[in-house]
This record gives sequence, structure tokens and C-alpha cells, in this order.
Amino acid sequence: MGKVFFDMAVSLDGYVAGDDRGPNNPLGNGGTNLHLWMYKQKAFFNSLGMEGGELDDGDGDLIRGVFARTGAYIMGKRMFEEGEANWPEDLYKTDVYVLTHEKRDPWVQKGTTRFYFENGGPNIALQKAKQSAGNKDVRIQGGAETIQQFLNAGLVDECIVHYAPTILGSGIRLFDKLDKGIYDIAIDKVMESNLTTHIVYKFKNK
Amino acid sequence: MGKVFFDMAVSLDGYVAGDDRGPNNPLGNGGTNLHLWMYKQKAFFNSLGMEGGELDDGDGDLIRGVFARTGAYIMGKRMFEEGEANWPEDLYKTDVYVLTHEKRDPWVQKGTTRFYFENGGPNIALQKAKQSAGNKDVRIQGGAETIQQFLNAGLVDECIVHYAPTILGSGIRLFDKLDKGIYDIAIDKVMESNLTTHIVYKFKNK
Repeated sequence: MGKVFFDMAVSLDGYVAGDDRGPNNPLGNGGTNLHLWMYKQKAFFNSLGMEGGELDDGDGDLIRGVFARTGAYIMGKRMFEEGEANWPEDLYKTDVYVLTHEKRDPWVQKGTTRFYFENGGPNIALQKAKQSAGNKDVRIQGGAETIQQFLNAGLVDECIVHYAPTILGSGIRLFDKLDKGIYDIAIDKVMESNLTTHIVYKFKNK
Repeated sequence: MGKVFFDMAVSLDGYVAGDDRGPNNPLGNGGTNLHLWMYKQKAFFNSLGMEGGELDDGDGDLIRGVFARTGAYIMGKRMFEEGEANWPEDLYKTDVYVLTHEKRDPWVQKGTTRFYFENGGPNIALQKAKQSAGNKDVRIQGGAETIQQFLNAGLVDECIVHYAPTILGSGIRLFDKLDKGIYDIAIDKVMESNLTTHIVYKFKNK
């Protein structure tokens, strides 16, 4: 049975994106500073179907591992709309469930990426995503509000947080408006790197 | 020349204290969950002049190290007022500068702890604390607002953050209302532990 997880980079002050975020500035002001470790990695550019990066080390293994374990994605409507304009075709290579009130036919891309527009809320989306994922895991892709929704619904099993040594000052916080007392949380793994610290946390419903 | 640093534990959602904080509940609701790693350590109880704790390992070395490097403390008025009722005599064992508008004679405790009530603001307090500290470091003890004040004034050289795997949901955030663009920040050291992850960051003014 697959797990439900998310994987996000945060600034020292806990932001996943800076101010003035939008389709032309998807990470907001200063947001690229969160991902400097990733932009060094060949695996990252490879996942976009591009050449680039200078390193292929443990951080690259981590990037490949997250893609490999993910059998389906769930994302919020805003993330989808901001991404739609920017993503290369067939980025996700599996089923992606977009939480939205909009009724829209599935968007079948070249390759194996299929976007399904789900009007039934997080639980129904998760049920379908788990079916798509089979033995693999379901990644709650984002944005922050969607992750908060799944956290507060007690639906998350694990997360990977990349702690970037940068201050954004304002923007969108990852861990915000959370209910306490839902989970027992344990540190599963800490991976050091130059430009970030990766920490894997396990969540168990109390 | 000594450094200026702070050392704080934060929840997954970035809080240093929960709600309903006050002299009778100095860490706020759920706040003790931030420090579970510390309560295991003999070095922690020893620093309070008490018996207690079950372990003496790398986390204990860290606690002893922070005490040993600190030649003077600076703290906000609220932290002092909340602590005054709870701290054992001679806890700090050196000079402590309390930022306050109140005029008050130094409080000379048994042993070597001296509280000075400083009306001149952070820069003056820091000047005096550096003089007290000599070759040792100055610790900005807290609370969060005082640390933010020193961060935004470009006065911090280093911090140790203990990332506790717990959600507080609300309370007082450590990294809040910060100005971006003041520092280049680098990861200096990551220390794994069961109940927290210690990360040391170095701050360099841009």
C-alpha cells in the first residue's frame, strides 16, 4: 500500500514562495533561492527533459527517488493554473488530480501524463490517486494550502522538507494554519548537503 | 573577537512558544514538546543545578558547549519578566543585559549572575555585552522579537536552530517579520538526533 507524502523546500522563515507570485513568476520574489541545491543537479534538468546541471550526487539520487516512488499526484487549482503555462509536455508521466470546482474533461498529454479535474474534494481525489498509484506513493504536489488541507485532514504519512538557508521575509508559508494534536511526528532521515538540509518526517495519526 | 549568536528550538511550523504564554506557562501550550531532546540530557538539568536526565551524549555536549562559549546574554524585557519568577539563582553565571525602558539598578545575584537593565537599545546593549564577554560570544537569549530585532539590525553572526518534529498550530514564531537581503546565510553544521535536528547557520552581512 503506497504512502501519501509531500516534498517541499522552505526558507529559514518557512516560506515556499515569495511575494508577487503568479504565472509569470511562479516562485515569487526570491523563490529561486529555495532551490539552489536542485539547480546544481543533472537529475533535476533531466526530469524536465533538458540538459543542465553540474553535479550528480546524493541530491540527484533524492530527486530521482521522489520521481520514481510517485505513482500519482494531487495538486491545487492555483498551482495547476500557474504551472499550465510553464510546464513541459508530459512532465509528470502519470495521473495528476487537480482539485477544482471547474468541470473539465481530462487533459491527455503526449506520453503518459493525464490531468484529471476533480470536483469531489481531497478525500475523493486521494481515493482515485491511490488507485492510479497502485503500489507506488501519492505525492501531494502543492501548493501550500493544498498540503495544509491534507495535513489537517489527517491524510499525510510522510514529508520531505528541504531547509534552505535564505530569508524571504514574506510570501506563502508551508506550515501554516495547522491543527495541532493530529499526528505523532518522527524524524525518519536527515540528509546533509551544501545548500540545503533534507529532513524526512513520518506522520502517524494519534 | 566573540560572535553574536542565538540558539532556539522551533516546531515544524516555526513556533518557539505556544498560545497562552505567561509567567506561569513560559513556553505556552505544547511548548515543552519543542525541548523533549533537552529534557533527556543530564547536561540540561546540571545547568539548572539539578539532578535529572537519563542521557549524556552529543546533545549533552551541545548544551555544555553553548553555555561554555557564552560570555554575556542579551534578552528582552518580557522574557526577563517571565523568567524572573522561574529561574534558579545564578542560572546565567555571567552578565545579562535586559532591554527595557524601565530604570532599575543592576540585580546582583549570588554567584556571578548580574542583570543589567539597559535603556539604550540593542546596539548599546550589544556594545556592553561584548565588553562583558571578552573573547567569548554574546548570546541573544530571546524572546523571538528580540532576536528578530537583532537579525534585522544586521548584528547576528550565527544561530543554532533545533527543529522539533511537532506542530504547535499557533503561538510565537521565531523567524517572522524579517527583512530579506541583509545576510548571506550558509549551513555550517548539521547534527542529527532522535527528537530534534540541530542546524548551525552562519550569517554574513551582504
